[in-house]
Amino acid sequence: GTMKALRGPKNVFVERTLTSSGVFLLQMGWGDLGALGEPSKETPNLDQMAAEGMLFLDFYTASPLCSPSRAALLTGRLPVRNGFYTTNGHARNAYTPQDIVGGIPDSELLLPELLKKAGYTNKIIGKWHLGHRPQFHPLRHGFDEWFGSPNCHFGPYDSSERPNIPVYRDWDMAGRYYEDFKIDLKTGEANLTQLYLQEALDFISKQQASQQPFFLYWAIDATHAPVYASKQFLGTSQRGLYGDAVREIDDSVGKILKHLQQLGISENTFVFFTSDNGAALISAPKQGGSNGPFLCGKQTTFEGGMREPAIAWWPGHIPAGGVSHQLGSVMDLFSTSLSLAGLQPPSDRQIDGIDLLPVILQGKLIDRPIFYYRGNELMAVRAGLYKAHYWTWSNSWEEHSKGIDFCPGQSVAGVTTHTQEEHTYLPLLFHLGRDPGEKYPLSFASEEYQQAVEHISGLVQQHKATLVPGQPQLNVCDQAVMNWAPPGCEKLGKCLKAPESDPKKCSWPH
Amino acid sequence: GTMKALRGPKNVFVERTLTSSGVFLLQMGWGDLGALGEPSKETPNLDQMAAEGMLFLDFYTASPLCSPSRAALLTGRLPVRNGFYTTNGHARNAYTPQDIVGGIPDSELLLPELLKKAGYTNKIIGKWHLGHRPQFHPLRHGFDEWFGSPNCHFGPYDSSERPNIPVYRDWDMAGRYYEDFKIDLKTGEANLTQLYLQEALDFISKQQASQQPFFLYWAIDATHAPVYASKQFLGTSQRGLYGDAVREIDDSVGKILKHLQQLGISENTFVFFTSDNGAALISAPKQGGSNGPFLCGKQTTFEGGMREPAIAWWPGHIPAGGVSHQLGSVMDLFSTSLSLAGLQPPSDRQIDGIDLLPVILQGKLIDRPIFYYRGNELMAVRAGLYKAHYWTWSNSWEEHSKGIDFCPGQSVAGVTTHTQEEHTYLPLLFHLGRDPGEKYPLSFASEEYQQAVEHISGLVQQHKATLVPGQPQLNVCDQAVMNWAPPGCEKLGKCLKAPESDPKKCSWPH
Repeated sequence: GTMKALRGPKNVFVERTLTSSGVFLLQMGWGDLGALGEPSKETPNLDQMAAEGMLFLDFYTASPLCSPSRAALLTGRLPVRNGFYTTNGHARNAYTPQDIVGGIPDSELLLPELLKKAGYTNKIIGKWHLGHRPQFHPLRHGFDEWFGSPNCHFGPYDSSERPNIPVYRDWDMAGRYYEDFKIDLKTGEANLTQLYLQEALDFISKQQASQQPFFLYWAIDATHAPVYASKQFLGTSQRGLYGDAVREIDDSVGKILKHLQQLGISENTFVFFTSDNGAALISAPKQGGSNGPFLCGKQTTFEGGMREPAIAWWPGHIPAGGVSHQLGSVMDLFSTSLSLAGLQPPSDRQIDGIDLLPVILQGKLIDRPIFYYRGNELMAVRAGLYKAHYWTWSNSWEEHSKGIDFCPGQSVAGVTTHTQEEHTYLPLLFHLGRDPGEKYPLSFASEEYQQAVEHISGLVQQHKATLVPGQPQLNVCDQAVMNWAPPGCEKLGKCLKAPESDPKKCSWPH
Repeated sequence: GTMKALRGPKNVFVERTLTSSGVFLLQMGWGDLGALGEPSKETPNLDQMAAEGMLFLDFYTASPLCSPSRAALLTGRLPVRNGFYTTNGHARNAYTPQDIVGGIPDSELLLPELLKKAGYTNKIIGKWHLGHRPQFHPLRHGFDEWFGSPNCHFGPYDSSERPNIPVYRDWDMAGRYYEDFKIDLKTGEANLTQLYLQEALDFISKQQASQQPFFLYWAIDATHAPVYASKQFLGTSQRGLYGDAVREIDDSVGKILKHLQQLGISENTFVFFTSDNGAALISAPKQGGSNGPFLCGKQTTFEGGMREPAIAWWPGHIPAGGVSHQLGSVMDLFSTSLSLAGLQPPSDRQIDGIDLLPVILQGKLIDRPIFYYRGNELMAVRAGLYKAHYWTWSNSWEEHSKGIDFCPGQSVAGVTTHTQEEHTYLPLLFHLGRDPGEKYPLSFASEEYQQAVEHISGLVQQHKATLVPGQPQLNVCDQAVMNWAPPGCEKLGKCLKAPESDPKKCSWPH
């Protein structure tokens, strides 16, 4: 999960109003919100946030997996541009496990780097996931403060084959998951969300006291397997442990928004809530959420993999109860945040995000496509209510036969395929208004098909003609680069000995 | 669709407050409401109704098919008791096509019959569906007025093999669908919902003027295939024709509620909105809706077939924004309506409905099971968050191979079976909180399984021990009983000649 909060000059020419802006980014499905039909309706604070702000119904992440989505959010650029993809296999998802050699390139300009120019203090709380080696440290890429971890909280590890993931306080490690920051895999108990919440409240208080604009990126991960919740939330949801985690996050969001209100800065704080990928149905029901009426989940370019819950909140500016059908993207948070700070996006590179302020403040609709990538392949494109699939794939028969299922209980003939099916000449076309679940491809022979595909294929041509792929960062893995001895480990007696370097092609099965 | 509005003595011992009560019953899926996650959120009036009233998240119909559900609503009794089932085949759904010989037995006591004792005027607008032969006429079963049809609006028919369905004004026919009441199957245009809306508004005005308590059952059917909408709504939904019909119904609901408010009787009017079965996925996407995150649809006893959208509205009495997890049933509307009128349910027979007023007004939760029947078979039982399937069946391989699919895009091994699978000794058990989509049966070996099944099996034993099945009404079909010459046909020159009587066992394939 992630929150970023921006405070900065709303309009530099008129007055230096401090405009806060927040994004909570986590792994949660479209269907996990009460306001979006989760049958037990256990997210009163998020539902209230939506009722007071604007709910985006057609909002997308930039990749069906975590690291590339987060890199896209912070750079405003598709993973294929910023390097967060692999060429080791066709259309494979890749991320940043702790043996990954790559990370966010220095050539990329991150949102916090740019916001510094407008005097912002930038903090990341939670999961960074843009590379854990020293050159990729968030404080080298524009953040001023960090409390959280560079990788997912997988574990526990035995310290010989693999070290436990460190938790950083700014430049140095403060401990490791499972050792110093407990996660009980049996009971699901961990108080990490409470720590991350307190960290957010304290940071906001400090910034308010010093009257400094801030950008807070609140990237919690309690709903990512292994799912956890604090003791006070365990057993409180009728959805089980996953629901307990959602309830704790919902409660935390409510507390952060209330804190902004109590400090009197809610009208200067733009807050955005969304997710880095669809619910991980592979972990459902105990460790995974719901994508509501959408097809499949995380790892796929069907709607369940990339359509996300999304709420914009900014009391006094966004009319309450707004609902938008704007096609939106996590990359828009880059451009929108810059706009709030009175800054221009960099002009020396392609930025995929757009400024959503006209949508949010004036109810405008901006015509733009959504590109669905899986690794190095453009799998699908949405324009208006039409979505064309150029490639279909859930996962391989080999993986599927092992019980790895990205579409449990769902099976659409010719769509949720277990071989990579190419449709570049005759894309599979769906109308997402009539058929949000991608179950009924339109007839190739229909006039509607031909018109829509002609339009979308034009967009694809244009996109591909100008595309300059970045150097792929997620190709090489090496056990030697794991978190054996993070900075500060010596002070804690937590340094481990790294094995010999032995770089290999990373294996990306999906 | 159906609305019933009740006005009557809320508490006969204190004062004769006129308490109106309304139910809109139609074929619509749980997932068709914006408030329940329909991705285009096109039901602002129903969402507003929910925001002002109480939304039931665990509300059920009494059968996955229309006629039995409607019979259950009006009698407060399961179809297996009131006769609305067949024994022609095991676990077969049956309804009242126009060659059905049976209908609602005289021995059943209908809600309007009982409400008459408290001085109510009762009106049905729309589809009756409890038998179309003279002895089953709604005005013989407690209604004072009727504008609508006895059967579904299927057609057009050629008048020789099959007559078109009549539309009645009280005792006599006023015309026929496709002839006098146009439905354009090509464009989907029909102004019937507008006629039914105006009829409702006029009836309410008349009752308000005469200060008489009323019961209005508004049973519209625009969302039942063949789906239709008025010209002003055609093309207005991003969901296509089905969405146009939903928008028109949503608009009509808004107008009826506003009318009650403008007449100053909204605080004396209890209104309930729900559906007679889940969305007909077999007709999707053009003619069928959405069951949100639930499994399968109409015709099945999975959640998609029987869990329904449900909203109670009664300004000044129901606290706004309420959400209830009470296990509710359309049969409860019988008992609740009687309670509102200060009447007791009949004591000489088993009533399955319960009085929901303590739930609605005081937020109580009443422990009770939900029984899922398909024809003559108890397929499943829900108690608390557990649901045990004693039989599973979607439809036969034979039907399925013809493209008849009650679970399009969905396939859960061992659950959505195409043969009738018996599980009476080891029921399939689901936890609907963790797994609302019925995808992950609990392990037979778990303690959780054993405790839950023991509890539910006790409820089943108790239920079966006291069950007295009614005489099955839906076994015999005869072309001679069709709507050839409904009362009043002579005045309109609309009488047709019936063929010779040739009674046969009705064929129920599902």
